[in-house]
Amino acid sequence: MLPSLLVSLLYGGGDAPAFLLSIGITALCGALPGFLLKPKRADLTPRDGMVVAGLSWAIFSFFGCLPFVFSGAISHFADAYFETVSGFTTTGASILTEIESLPRGILFWRSFTHWIGGMGVLIFTLALLPRLSGRSAHLARAESPGPTFTKLLPRMSDTAKILYILYLALSLIMFLVLLLCGMNAYDALIHTFGTAGTGGFSNYNASVGAFQSPLIEWVIALFMLLFGINFAVYFHLIRKDVRQAAKNEELWAYLIIVLLGTLGVTLSILPSYGHFFTALRYGFFHVSSIISTTGFSAADFNLWPVFAKGILVLLMFIGACAGSTAGGFKVSRIVMLVKSGFRDVRHTLQPRKVAVVRMDGKPVQEGTLSTLGVYLFLYICIMILGALIVSLEAPDFATSFTASLTCLSNVGPGLNAVGPANNFAFFSPLIKWSLSFLMLAGRLEIYPILALFSISVWKKN
Amino acid sequence: MLPSLLVSLLYGGGDAPAFLLSIGITALCGALPGFLLKPKRADLTPRDGMVVAGLSWAIFSFFGCLPFVFSGAISHFADAYFETVSGFTTTGASILTEIESLPRGILFWRSFTHWIGGMGVLIFTLALLPRLSGRSAHLARAESPGPTFTKLLPRMSDTAKILYILYLALSLIMFLVLLLCGMNAYDALIHTFGTAGTGGFSNYNASVGAFQSPLIEWVIALFMLLFGINFAVYFHLIRKDVRQAAKNEELWAYLIIVLLGTLGVTLSILPSYGHFFTALRYGFFHVSSIISTTGFSAADFNLWPVFAKGILVLLMFIGACAGSTAGGFKVSRIVMLVKSGFRDVRHTLQPRKVAVVRMDGKPVQEGTLSTLGVYLFLYICIMILGALIVSLEAPDFATSFTASLTCLSNVGPGLNAVGPANNFAFFSPLIKWSLSFLMLAGRLEIYPILALFSISVWKKN
Repeated sequence: MLPSLLVSLLYGGGDAPAFLLSIGITALCGALPGFLLKPKRADLTPRDGMVVAGLSWAIFSFFGCLPFVFSGAISHFADAYFETVSGFTTTGASILTEIESLPRGILFWRSFTHWIGGMGVLIFTLALLPRLSGRSAHLARAESPGPTFTKLLPRMSDTAKILYILYLALSLIMFLVLLLCGMNAYDALIHTFGTAGTGGFSNYNASVGAFQSPLIEWVIALFMLLFGINFAVYFHLIRKDVRQAAKNEELWAYLIIVLLGTLGVTLSILPSYGHFFTALRYGFFHVSSIISTTGFSAADFNLWPVFAKGILVLLMFIGACAGSTAGGFKVSRIVMLVKSGFRDVRHTLQPRKVAVVRMDGKPVQEGTLSTLGVYLFLYICIMILGALIVSLEAPDFATSFTASLTCLSNVGPGLNAVGPANNFAFFSPLIKWSLSFLMLAGRLEIYPILALFSISVWKKN
Repeated sequence: MLPSLLVSLLYGGGDAPAFLLSIGITALCGALPGFLLKPKRADLTPRDGMVVAGLSWAIFSFFGCLPFVFSGAISHFADAYFETVSGFTTTGASILTEIESLPRGILFWRSFTHWIGGMGVLIFTLALLPRLSGRSAHLARAESPGPTFTKLLPRMSDTAKILYILYLALSLIMFLVLLLCGMNAYDALIHTFGTAGTGGFSNYNASVGAFQSPLIEWVIALFMLLFGINFAVYFHLIRKDVRQAAKNEELWAYLIIVLLGTLGVTLSILPSYGHFFTALRYGFFHVSSIISTTGFSAADFNLWPVFAKGILVLLMFIGACAGSTAGGFKVSRIVMLVKSGFRDVRHTLQPRKVAVVRMDGKPVQEGTLSTLGVYLFLYICIMILGALIVSLEAPDFATSFTASLTCLSNVGPGLNAVGPANNFAFFSPLIKWSLSFLMLAGRLEIYPILALFSISVWKKN
């Protein structure tokens, strides 16, 4: 919260006391247990990793929402918590109806949560607390998106370091490009945070559309796409290992989906916009925004034809690449499931033939494959449960369905009453707490959150 | 088609020539290849089973639609094919806007397709052609619903026989009960066919609601529920093996889902109907109708609250028990996936512990489990693809989504423009062919239909 305090003081805002108070409370609550309690064991078991990941995100969000509450920017606690969870989980779903009148420090903090959340609140914390880093493997595994966890370098802390440098560098480049496009420094920072974390909070009510600049829309669309790519690809690229980077099947699948999606949406909305390049710009922007689970908008896609909306809802589910800052089901899981599908069809034809599913040239373990299907099932179960709860208050089926999906996939906007021109303010606290839960479940890829409900977690030993 | 011809003659209908012509063409096309071609091999490989199942349903539906075309009851071929596929696959989605004015023979044939389709067109044919029955194992496997195929008796033909006797007996009981409730014989037969096959074609525009009889609604609701149960349960019951019947975990899960669904829908629609037992009747009727994938309606559930509609859409996906005449994803698959989900959550907590998923007391093979997830994925892929195609012409998201789902799950009605008070007539032939494909894919549980697209199927050897 310190950078936000600085921004607040810079703009002479009245929100500085709120930050001071929040920093004080957070520091106190963070430091006290360290003095009072001594851990009996220094190592973390897989179970500990799950529980710590699940609990910390919920608790961090509690502290994160303090500035909103103390500054009076968001008056209800459920609203403030929803907004903070939406920030940390890089969802970008908002309960704010009027954004532009809020103090600059508060809006900075709101977007900064995206940037922290993007690479994982916990790994961020661990990077600041080096003495803990030896214990972080299980934590990183519990928190990292994607079906498998690959260390880029032998040591966990080195992997975290290189990922952070890449994240910082890419963010810096984007910030500079946005400045070159004529954005002021504050807006450029806010939109860099929103893009890098694939979050989607803007400081304008009309989101990116407020700039009325095709150039800025193209630039942000491109960077949203880039932040949806597995960071391992960039790691290989800066090592000039282009062959290794090009071997990443998920990357190609991701780009093909974006290409097809853009084509479909562009053709569908062409009659509404008349001009091909306008339709292409809006098409690419929103396909990139939704598949990368960012959620910025340049137009109200809720007014588009059903076919275009259908594609966007599909992309909400798919999400971007594993090992990126994005949410969703992840392209690599889709690729593996497609390959398993082909194999199973062949298997029904020739039951005696044994085939192995390969990914990036390497065979995938059968255990990983069966877990994939179960993960898909759990993802859908949680989405349906969420949709049923939301349907208690939603005006129609599409609203309840997409509100649940967009939160679980950490996208932000949905359709109809939760479309890009609307927000989540009208729901009751029950729905807001449920959707906060969905956002956390989506960001942590379900298991750590479900683990909290497992009895065995709370049993001694 | 012979029984339909008899019905037609009985009511002195002008549709008799249409049946005579159709019977002639079908008999000719059925007999000719038998004289001209001699099979080189007498046995069927698994590949043959898949291909025969996939192709025959499509071809049978072609012959099945001839009476509709020749009688002029349905003028467009795409419409007639859609209606026949909807009949054979026991979906019950209709393109007819005015049903009651059609000749009685035609309406009888329309519903009779449900009854034939219920137990499988192929197994029906095989039962009539005993010399083929030795080759039928792979066929039966390709055509039977559910994740695993259990023979009740050692010999395939005995299993088919006992299933047919059960099907006939249960249908006869229902027919008699409907007569006792005051229905005339013709209506009773039509609604028995629609219920036994879990199809849902009625000879009234208002479906079961036309009878305005709570008693008839309760009776049909109960029988829809019964025809959604695995026939193996009835087999054990008539053998007085209650313990074996009660061991069927899928049955209990099915009943619990029906109970919870009825409760949810009843409470949701209670304010609209005022009276608890009216709400309960409508709730139970539609939950039973949708989960059994029958699709009869007694009220226009499209006007119900979003929560009630959400539950029904969920039930459309779930479907009833394996080994019944119903469609959908099947309760047993859900049960196995839930168990796998619990196991995987435990596994993330204690990675070294190895656990086995059990069903009905017996361990489930890991191969079956990984296939389940892939099947779920394929089911969703086909549904999404269908929804995207339908969205080209659907007025809204819910219409395209539920039109695709209701056809793939062989239910019948969806929401909004394809709700129970509407029908599929307004779609273009492209959409009707696509939805016909979805109904076939759903009825055959995807693999035989996908197998037709596999190159290896068409290669020699």
